[in-house]
Amino acid sequence: MELREEIVQIAAKAKKASRDLSSLGSSAKDGALESIAGALVDEADRIKTANDKDLEAAEKNGLSAAMIDRLRLTPERVKAMADGLLEIVALPDPVGEVTRMWTRPNGLRIGRMRIPLGVIGIIFESRPNVTVDAAGLCLKSGNAVILRGGSEAINSNKVLGDIMIEKATAAGVPEGAVQVIPTTDRAAVDFLLEQEDYIDVIIPRGGEALIRKVVERSRIPVLKHYKGVCHVYVDADANPKKAREICMNAKLQRTGVCNAMETMLVHVGIAEDFLAMIVPAMLEQGVELRGCEITRDFQPQVKPAVEDDWSAEYLDKILAVRVVEDLDMAIDHIRRYGSDHTDAIVTENYTIAQRFIREVDSSSVMVNASTRFSDGFQYGLGAEIGISTTRLHAYGPMGLEELTTTKFIVHGDGQIRES
Amino acid sequence: MELREEIVQIAAKAKKASRDLSSLGSSAKDGALESIAGALVDEADRIKTANDKDLEAAEKNGLSAAMIDRLRLTPERVKAMADGLLEIVALPDPVGEVTRMWTRPNGLRIGRMRIPLGVIGIIFESRPNVTVDAAGLCLKSGNAVILRGGSEAINSNKVLGDIMIEKATAAGVPEGAVQVIPTTDRAAVDFLLEQEDYIDVIIPRGGEALIRKVVERSRIPVLKHYKGVCHVYVDADANPKKAREICMNAKLQRTGVCNAMETMLVHVGIAEDFLAMIVPAMLEQGVELRGCEITRDFQPQVKPAVEDDWSAEYLDKILAVRVVEDLDMAIDHIRRYGSDHTDAIVTENYTIAQRFIREVDSSSVMVNASTRFSDGFQYGLGAEIGISTTRLHAYGPMGLEELTTTKFIVHGDGQIRES
Repeated sequence: MELREEIVQIAAKAKKASRDLSSLGSSAKDGALESIAGALVDEADRIKTANDKDLEAAEKNGLSAAMIDRLRLTPERVKAMADGLLEIVALPDPVGEVTRMWTRPNGLRIGRMRIPLGVIGIIFESRPNVTVDAAGLCLKSGNAVILRGGSEAINSNKVLGDIMIEKATAAGVPEGAVQVIPTTDRAAVDFLLEQEDYIDVIIPRGGEALIRKVVERSRIPVLKHYKGVCHVYVDADANPKKAREICMNAKLQRTGVCNAMETMLVHVGIAEDFLAMIVPAMLEQGVELRGCEITRDFQPQVKPAVEDDWSAEYLDKILAVRVVEDLDMAIDHIRRYGSDHTDAIVTENYTIAQRFIREVDSSSVMVNASTRFSDGFQYGLGAEIGISTTRLHAYGPMGLEELTTTKFIVHGDGQIRES
Repeated sequence: MELREEIVQIAAKAKKASRDLSSLGSSAKDGALESIAGALVDEADRIKTANDKDLEAAEKNGLSAAMIDRLRLTPERVKAMADGLLEIVALPDPVGEVTRMWTRPNGLRIGRMRIPLGVIGIIFESRPNVTVDAAGLCLKSGNAVILRGGSEAINSNKVLGDIMIEKATAAGVPEGAVQVIPTTDRAAVDFLLEQEDYIDVIIPRGGEALIRKVVERSRIPVLKHYKGVCHVYVDADANPKKAREICMNAKLQRTGVCNAMETMLVHVGIAEDFLAMIVPAMLEQGVELRGCEITRDFQPQVKPAVEDDWSAEYLDKILAVRVVEDLDMAIDHIRRYGSDHTDAIVTENYTIAQRFIREVDSSSVMVNASTRFSDGFQYGLGAEIGISTTRLHAYGPMGLEELTTTKFIVHGDGQIRES
């Protein structure tokens, strides 16, 4: 069979499955997730055999040690995947929730009921644990899922898919609800992105290059975030101790993540004192600082920043620093160079805090907290399928609710329309 | 200036305006809308002169009488546009609403705040009143708008745009918040649909051909509905009087609209009696009936339906009729041939009603009510910018809220992340 035809069949099968899946009860879905969690642990050997094949190929192909590490499924990592599924079981089922209901003058009762989006395509890079996480979230929210992982993890992903499909089907989940694209042929992604009649949304997970490629080629809507250029703005009325702790945490608690601070903005009124404290502290932790001229006037050991630094997502121990004249200049900087991910202010000034919250329209806006909290689990959403920095449908961390939409339900008693 | 460059500048200007517009207060926005409403009435002559040019051209180009009528701006229609704006003034401003707020164990307070989508592109056909309606809804919800109407209404649209822009700017709305594409060149639409860096969403309003063209070419997400193939399913346990009234209303109260019934499904257990009542009543009203074989066994004067009838959006006094064996067959029919617009059941049976509500995932699902109620005004949303039959972002009638998204807001007291 031709590859395009094969992909069309996978997509059509998912669409068909999504219809029955959408009204499958919570207990059936949770039962399937528990059964899969058990099987992942029980079938550790089968998973290891497949994963070893991927690891061998990776070494033969000269992948970096870091990439090989991400690819490796240790027993601990398999256990963590299984535990992740059990956490999803514990979350409330969003499907069927009536979020609002109101009565019209003619007696009609109108409500909005949550329903699944339908069919979700996930396109991701090397970590095979995404296969299980994403399938778990889609299944719980009543969506059929088509998974396409990186070619270097194809054997691992296939066996994880097989285990999930076996157990899900045995638990009463419709066939086709979970599918893994079984080939590493790159054309499969292009064909997948053409199936707008069957697939409702694409969620790419990986680096900026992957996401740009998906967006360019997709005829299906894409929920995405390109990068996180997160700011902390230390206001003139900041509590210096809070500011220091938040900045150190936002930059250093983990550097290679999208919600780490990449640029620190400092109000000129507090700059001399605050920079005298934070610059040595950052340098001591091995952070390379790149600052504007005023920053360097106060702290000459800071390297000069160039224009590109203001929009850089370093994902590393590097920090851009700029002194600003006031809140307006800080907000202008964030709007111009930011990525709509997460931006924070440190201030004790009520009015300034309110203005920052209102006027910065990034997907997460914070007062007196570390940008590192921008995360579905930290927000209490219970899970995260990804982060969106575009405004349509979802903006910010996406949990189970963001995998649903609402339909209108109307309860009448024979009402007809007069005009 | 080249056309492409001109469109890029319009889009960039809209983006810039959207930033200030997003935090503009309700009183400024409402003041602008009131001022525009007043000016529309005051400048009736200026509008008439422009509209006459369009009408002359339309006659010269041999447009149909119906199209010319839709194009005509009578004093009553101008007054209706102005009144429409005043109704938008009376609606609550969705921007800034905190829809939920909760506290995390570490004391962080997390909330979701409504913000505008940003820049909205509206592409529509002949009726020039859409220019004012759509601009009013976008302005109220804090979105910049770019309007592109049909070429036959270019003079009317331009003068309506000029009046709105003059009054809005005078009332403090940022320049660029409302713009009308000033050319009838078809390439302008193509260029507009490329501006994904500046435009957040496209809403096409018009026939299926227009919408398909927009979807095919757009790199920007499109909120759309293709057509309304709406069903009423008369269950075995229907109250015959309610069923008759609902079916007559859904088919006949207005026929050329997307929420009119196009196919009637009748349970076999009630078919003989119900068809004996409804068929003569429909025929008497001049409705052409096209039925399945069983329908024709009961009522031989019904014409035979062919396969295409089940998916037809007649927008006319024509009705497809099918007898089904049970609820499952009715739901299967709706899933297969429906358009995810609006589907209703008539029944007194509680369990059947609940199943229909739960298992039919059209954007509006009704029990014992006419499909004609599927409308933003009828639902009490206060306004309607259109209807979406795709599930991402909005599903069903779209009001002001659907022109917004939510950002996460986080109030802290110096919290940092430990792990």
